[in-house]
Amino acid sequence: MSETHRDQYLIREEPYYRTVEDEVRLYEAAYAARMPVMLKGPTGCGKSRFVEYMAWRLERPLITVACNEDMTASDLVGRFLLDADGTRWQDGPLTVAARIGAICYLDEVVEARQDTTVVIHPLTDHRRCLPLEKKGELVEAHPDFQIVISYNPGYQSLMKDLKQSTKQRFGALDFSYPGAAIEAEIVAHEGGIERDQADRLVQVAQRSRNLKGHGLDEGMSTRLLVYAAQLMAKGIEPRAAAQMALVRPLTDDPDMRDTLDAAVDTYF
Amino acid sequence: MSETHRDQYLIREEPYYRTVEDEVRLYEAAYAARMPVMLKGPTGCGKSRFVEYMAWRLERPLITVACNEDMTASDLVGRFLLDADGTRWQDGPLTVAARIGAICYLDEVVEARQDTTVVIHPLTDHRRCLPLEKKGELVEAHPDFQIVISYNPGYQSLMKDLKQSTKQRFGALDFSYPGAAIEAEIVAHEGGIERDQADRLVQVAQRSRNLKGHGLDEGMSTRLLVYAAQLMAKGIEPRAAAQMALVRPLTDDPDMRDTLDAAVDTYF
Amino acid sequence: MSETHRDQYLIREEPYYRTVEDEVRLYEAAYAARMPVMLKGPTGCGKSRFVEYMAWRLERPLITVACNEDMTASDLVGRFLLDADGTRWQDGPLTVAARIGAICYLDEVVEARQDTTVVIHPLTDHRRCLPLEKKGELVEAHPDFQIVISYNPGYQSLMKDLKQSTKQRFGALDFSYPGAAIEAEIVAHEGGIERDQADRLVQVAQRSRNLKGHGLDEGMSTRLLVYAAQLMAKGIEPRAAAQMALVRPLTDDPDMRDTLDAAVDTYF
Amino acid sequence: MSETHRDQYLIREEPYYRTVEDEVRLYEAAYAARMPVMLKGPTGCGKSRFVEYMAWRLERPLITVACNEDMTASDLVGRFLLDADGTRWQDGPLTVAARIGAICYLDEVVEARQDTTVVIHPLTDHRRCLPLEKKGELVEAHPDFQIVISYNPGYQSLMKDLKQSTKQRFGALDFSYPGAAIEAEIVAHEGGIERDQADRLVQVAQRSRNLKGHGLDEGMSTRLLVYAAQLMAKGIEPRAAAQMALVRPLTDDPDMRDTLDAAVDTYF
Amino acid sequence: MSETHRDQYLIREEPYYRTVEDEVRLYEAAYAARMPVMLKGPTGCGKSRFVEYMAWRLERPLITVACNEDMTASDLVGRFLLDADGTRWQDGPLTVAARIGAICYLDEVVEARQDTTVVIHPLTDHRRCLPLEKKGELVEAHPDFQIVISYNPGYQSLMKDLKQSTKQRFGALDFSYPGAAIEAEIVAHEGGIERDQADRLVQVAQRSRNLKGHGLDEGMSTRLLVYAAQLMAKGIEPRAAAQMALVRPLTDDPDMRDTLDAAVDTYF
Amino acid sequence: MSETHRDQYLIREEPYYRTVEDEVRLYEAAYAARMPVMLKGPTGCGKSRFVEYMAWRLERPLITVACNEDMTASDLVGRFLLDADGTRWQDGPLTVAARIGAICYLDEVVEARQDTTVVIHPLTDHRRCLPLEKKGELVEAHPDFQIVISYNPGYQSLMKDLKQSTKQRFGALDFSYPGAAIEAEIVAHEGGIERDQADRLVQVAQRSRNLKGHGLDEGMSTRLLVYAAQLMAKGIEPRAAAQMALVRPLTDDPDMRDTLDAAVDTYF
Repeated sequence: MSETHRDQYLIREEPYYRTVEDEVRLYEAAYAARMPVMLKGPTGCGKSRFVEYMAWRLERPLITVACNEDMTASDLVGRFLLDADGTRWQDGPLTVAARIGAICYLDEVVEARQDTTVVIHPLTDHRRCLPLEKKGELVEAHPDFQIVISYNPGYQSLMKDLKQSTKQRFGALDFSYPGAAIEAEIVAHEGGIERDQADRLVQVAQRSRNLKGHGLDEGMSTRLLVYAAQLMAKGIEPRAAAQMALVRPLTDDPDMRDTLDAAVDTYF
Repeated sequence: MSETHRDQYLIREEPYYRTVEDEVRLYEAAYAARMPVMLKGPTGCGKSRFVEYMAWRLERPLITVACNEDMTASDLVGRFLLDADGTRWQDGPLTVAARIGAICYLDEVVEARQDTTVVIHPLTDHRRCLPLEKKGELVEAHPDFQIVISYNPGYQSLMKDLKQSTKQRFGALDFSYPGAAIEAEIVAHEGGIERDQADRLVQVAQRSRNLKGHGLDEGMSTRLLVYAAQLMAKGIEPRAAAQMALVRPLTDDPDMRDTLDAAVDTYF
Repeated sequence: MSETHRDQYLIREEPYYRTVEDEVRLYEAAYAARMPVMLKGPTGCGKSRFVEYMAWRLERPLITVACNEDMTASDLVGRFLLDADGTRWQDGPLTVAARIGAICYLDEVVEARQDTTVVIHPLTDHRRCLPLEKKGELVEAHPDFQIVISYNPGYQSLMKDLKQSTKQRFGALDFSYPGAAIEAEIVAHEGGIERDQADRLVQVAQRSRNLKGHGLDEGMSTRLLVYAAQLMAKGIEPRAAAQMALVRPLTDDPDMRDTLDAAVDTYF
Repeated sequence: MSETHRDQYLIREEPYYRTVEDEVRLYEAAYAARMPVMLKGPTGCGKSRFVEYMAWRLERPLITVACNEDMTASDLVGRFLLDADGTRWQDGPLTVAARIGAICYLDEVVEARQDTTVVIHPLTDHRRCLPLEKKGELVEAHPDFQIVISYNPGYQSLMKDLKQSTKQRFGALDFSYPGAAIEAEIVAHEGGIERDQADRLVQVAQRSRNLKGHGLDEGMSTRLLVYAAQLMAKGIEPRAAAQMALVRPLTDDPDMRDTLDAAVDTYF
Repeated sequence: MSETHRDQYLIREEPYYRTVEDEVRLYEAAYAARMPVMLKGPTGCGKSRFVEYMAWRLERPLITVACNEDMTASDLVGRFLLDADGTRWQDGPLTVAARIGAICYLDEVVEARQDTTVVIHPLTDHRRCLPLEKKGELVEAHPDFQIVISYNPGYQSLMKDLKQSTKQRFGALDFSYPGAAIEAEIVAHEGGIERDQADRLVQVAQRSRNLKGHGLDEGMSTRLLVYAAQLMAKGIEPRAAAQMALVRPLTDDPDMRDTLDAAVDTYF
Repeated sequence: MSETHRDQYLIREEPYYRTVEDEVRLYEAAYAARMPVMLKGPTGCGKSRFVEYMAWRLERPLITVACNEDMTASDLVGRFLLDADGTRWQDGPLTVAARIGAICYLDEVVEARQDTTVVIHPLTDHRRCLPLEKKGELVEAHPDFQIVISYNPGYQSLMKDLKQSTKQRFGALDFSYPGAAIEAEIVAHEGGIERDQADRLVQVAQRSRNLKGHGLDEGMSTRLLVYAAQLMAKGIEPRAAAQMALVRPLTDDPDMRDTLDAAVDTYF
């Protein structure tokens, strides 16, 4: 495995990440023990960004895999491909990460089928190895390798949950939307608008988040606030920007839309 | 990727599109920010035509994918094909769009399996990349690339909805049937009949749309009105044309057919 | 695509078809507008025969596909086959029809999986094209191409129905059993028996059709009447012929069989 | 298609078949019209033997396919196989039958998936052809070709039934166990025991058949009677033979076994 | 098919089998008639051992297939494998057995999918043949060939049962645990302990068998008794051996474990 | 099979394992009889570590397979791979273990599909063989070969359980969390903290284990305690370490989290 190969997974520039609590320090301690880490929290609150930031900070390569219900263990571990000279083994992203000592980030891991989660078990206990059963090889994880998964506990899925034997292999960090001041700072910075406007967008978002479980599945994410700010920065009037970026994506229920529109009208 | 290849996806002639509200301006701002856009609205109201129009207006190639429940992530991203010299990678339509800087339009995206929707996540946030995990390549999206999806919220499907973590990656535009005057203009233009006749067809359609949820799943679309107009333009008497193009396709319920036939009789 | 290839799909001899109402004129107008057409009606009432007749009358090739629930989009569109020199693309019947300008008749389309129905969408609107995504080719439909589907609304299938976004792409023609005189003419002609005998068979069939929904899923089709007539023409006595061709295929319920046998006894 | 190939499907010796009613004459008339035929009746009552007998009598090759729920249309129609020189098409049994003019007997056709039944539709109406869609060939059926299916109406399967559009393509013959005298003759002949012993076995069987629907799914078939007779012919005492061949295969319910054992004790 | 090949399936040494009733004589008569045989009985009572014994006694090769719900017909019949020179047919175990005249034993046949059971039909009636449809070959069974299946009627599976049309193709032999004296003899012989100790183990087992249906799915099998005996022979005290080999494998229910432990304490 | 190959599965260094009861002696007796062994107990209590320890102690190679619901029999037994010279057979881990005389440990075997569990049957009775049906080879197990499976009886899965015919092939050992003193010794040793701190962590864990079935699916495992200890050893204050490693991974229920936090506060 050449260094060049490893380099392509390095984060070159410091990602914009605004520390909220002691999550950086806790993650560093967990990484020092190479403890597998589970990031819990709602969609769009910065979990993926945090992993990128930590990978940059720790100067480790990062390999991200967006999990889905049709992903198989082979998609993670690798498979034989047919070649001019017969079959050729191709490492999957998890195997590459184990070999080069990357942080492997499995995003929304509950979406994956069980074989995908079970396949990480030997990498998450004292063995720190990955058996490539189809190839007959036992990959010892590189000393720098760490596994990180994300998990949205508010996402109600009766059919899907991690097994206890998987859960109990991870230390866990809770994520939530940042405090109002920090979130406004993020929205102003990423969306290119004035802080005053950003404050108002955050207040709209907070109203929507209080409606979670009362007609909304989720409140407006920081990402949507940045979208609204970007539209405003392109000259769209705030109410139209908020409708397009905050209200319409969230819900099709007419009453809930009225409620959210009223929240927008209050601040703009 | 040669320019010729890109050219085949360019819209050569201005598609007939009748602006309804400020959707063109909002879309242009969203495109300027390369914000992913979700078009919401009932079947046959002009969503696909709008995307074609915008692609023509912005002079960007357009790649359309009609989604369905059997489509896999590989259908979007690409796959290895067996060749005389072994396997050869073939880009899927999403990958082609990301490489050449096209607008990629995923029509009726809720029909697709979840892996198809999750695969677009890294293209819809700050990363703007598409990992081809099977090939081991990370495609950086072309600066002109944008993703657009359509979504019919009135289409009642208990089993199918976009996940919040997907929804919150898009700005959204609502579409509906155009106002009566505009719709009659469209029907007369596309169907080749007099404006007066077109007005009557639109009035029939509006009656049917009021029956939505009261025995009809959907009202008559603009497309069906154009069909009726085309039959009339070929010499079929209006009532027979309306039966063939407006009533029979919509429902097999005898009572509802009587109601709709009565509506036709009122205007013709 | 050579002319020879196209020729094999031409109907050489006029199919026996007895016009019932204005269906020929309406179909000709729809074909002139290249409007997709949906034929609705019970099993065995002549829908397939009608399409053959129209294809003969319009001098267009006809490609018929009997749909079923295991049919995939690839069965319609085409697939790569492995060859001595690697993979070779083979057009499916829909693609062949689009290329040579045939009428493509998808029989019992609700039986097919959704991907089969979605794949026809771009051929049924203003685009009139068929994207071969796996091949990376966009087939423009030949100007003569038209799509026709059949649909049995009385066939109660809770799980299966066409989506509105599919339904609203078709003009529709209703089919039913022909009137008594016409049906007897058909049975006498196709079964090779006297008109008087044919009249009696039709009367038996009409009794059975009144029992639809009252213990029978469907009444006796015109096809079964022709079968009974053929047995009679081979020397089988009418009651035995009616039992074999009309009663036993329809039901295994003893009471219903008695009722139908009594109807046979009334007329023979 | 060489004659030799066709010859291997010919029935060389007259199968032992005992005519019950007018089924031979009716079948001959149906075959003369090349009408598709459906044989209905309980398991082990002689349906398969009847088809063999008719194939022998008509001097036609017979191709039998035992249907099952995992059978695909390709199993019937054929498929491409990979060869040293690429892919090679291999006709399935239905295609072979259509080419060489055989009687194709689909045993227990309701067990098959719907695609297997839909694939026979074009062979069962005036078209008499079989489209090999994957190969792009339209096989015209040989003039001698006929299709026969079997169907056990007493076999209660909520999920499985033929569609009306399939049922109404067949003339139907009912089969049942033969009358006592005929059945005893069969059992004595095939099992190699005295007629008197055979009479007793038949009486046991008739008792069991009266229990159908009252704790038994099916009564004892003629085949099981032959088994019991064969054991007796090998020197096993009648009660032990009846237990092994008649009672134990039929049911595991202790009360029902007692009832059947009592019936055995009555006659032996 | 070389003799050597056939030889590898011969049972070289007499398997230890303790005759219980007249099962050997009945099986020999059934084999003489080449009648298919079904062995019914609870798990671990000696069905597999009996077939081995009979194969040894009759000097016939034995091919055993452990059935499971993922087994396909191809696993039994054979399949084409890709070779350097294209595809090569590989006989499955059923085909091998039919060719070389082996006894083919399908263990726990209800576990298999229906296609696996239907595939044996033509081998279990007067035809005694196996159509290899994919290969286009009709294998005539060797005169020595016989088919044997096993079936556990006490194993409650609502979804799984043999079809009557399969059941009625077999003579059946009931198996149960042997009588106490015989079972103790077996346990002492196979486990290497004194007869007195073996008697006690059998008494514990009989208590557990009375609990079947009253909190236990099955009682302790003869096999588990042999395990307990083997542990005792290695120096483990009887109570610990009984816990490890008899109680813990059977149930996790605390009350039931107490009951079984008490039974152990009674005898040791 | 070269010795080198076998060597890679040997455990080089003594794994840290703290004997709890007489499990070592019982396992040794079972191994001496080559009896298949089932390890029962909650997640993270040391089952896998125990097998490693025994493999080291007995100087036998160990092959571990983490089972999952998508694993097929081929994943265990082996498969044909396509090679430059056609297909090549590759032994699966179970086959390798049978050949080289390893202990084969199937972790969480109930997760696997039934075909995976049925495939081990002939290796778990007197036959001690593994039929490679696809290859046509019968592998005789090496005299040292033994099979071990693990099973979590507290893991409530209505759909999944081992069949009795599988269960009754194993001697069983119960595992649970070790006693408080032993567990604290393990936590101090593996986590690198003082015994006093470890005692407190164990007390927290015991509280959580009492909540099993009262709002928690499982209590805190020994593994999680080691994680908390490792964080503390890296300088994280005990409450933060306990939150990250003990509370958050276990549950998302706010009340339950409060209860567990209170337990942490009691001891730290």
